[in-house]
Amino acid sequence: MSLANSKRQFRFVKEHKSLTEVLMDHELASLGDSYINFVYSLTLSAKTGKPSGAKVKGDVLAEAVRTAKLRDFLPSRMSRHALADAAEALVVYAWLQRRMSVEESAAMIAGGKDTAEGMVKLLSAAMKRTTFP
Amino acid sequence: MSLANSKRQFRFVKEHKSLTEVLMDHELASLGDSYINFVYSLTLSAKTGKPSGAKVKGDVLAEAVRTAKLRDFLPSRMSRHALADAAEALVVYAWLQRRMSVEESAAMIAGGKDTAEGMVKLLSAAMKRTTFP
Repeated sequence: MSLANSKRQFRFVKEHKSLTEVLMDHELASLGDSYINFVYSLTLSAKTGKPSGAKVKGDVLAEAVRTAKLRDFLPSRMSRHALADAAEALVVYAWLQRRMSVEESAAMIAGGKDTAEGMVKLLSAAMKRTTFP
Repeated sequence: MSLANSKRQFRFVKEHKSLTEVLMDHELASLGDSYINFVYSLTLSAKTGKPSGAKVKGDVLAEAVRTAKLRDFLPSRMSRHALADAAEALVVYAWLQRRMSVEESAAMIAGGKDTAEGMVKLLSAAMKRTTFP
């Protein structure tokens, strides 16, 4: 079974028309949750020098959405949970679009002085690299 | 920050001398847990046609270790949890060694008639592809 078509696009990925559509896609966020935990675990492994597993806290992601100026693309009155979902959706969308590799994602998080700043770097890059028709 | 050295090997990965050493590495299992959940989520996304997130059940992994004939490389009297850890460690080790991509891992799981058989395929391939000094 091949997961991608001849353009190496994953068949199950809906092509979104705007950044807001991506950020509000809760299905993407489900997949993005597992993506972001994996790349963060890689970052942590590199930092500590030994393989490690960890989950990114929702609050860290919600705050990163604000700092990366993504808040303006979202409706007012969103829960912190919904903001964290938006971060997860965007990051995995960039990966699914082949705009950012797993290794790059992990290196971006590692490039911040702490996890919070690293997540802002990751979100900013994902925002810049995703394209819309 | 670069996570890999000039040979594209991740710096934090210890070079193991045997399959048993890999299977018994609990640190690798922590990272492997997040890897396997991500690739399984990709498989599920492809199968259902929409982005999805899911965790692989430990029992499925423990059973796959037995079916893939990896049990002989492990001490007797291991808990199902420890067997699941062994599966997670091996699969991410193959990825860290650049022997198997994320997409291939997901396609292998998808190649089974169900998740259980897919995990056996993934483990068998990881076992064949990892090399030792």
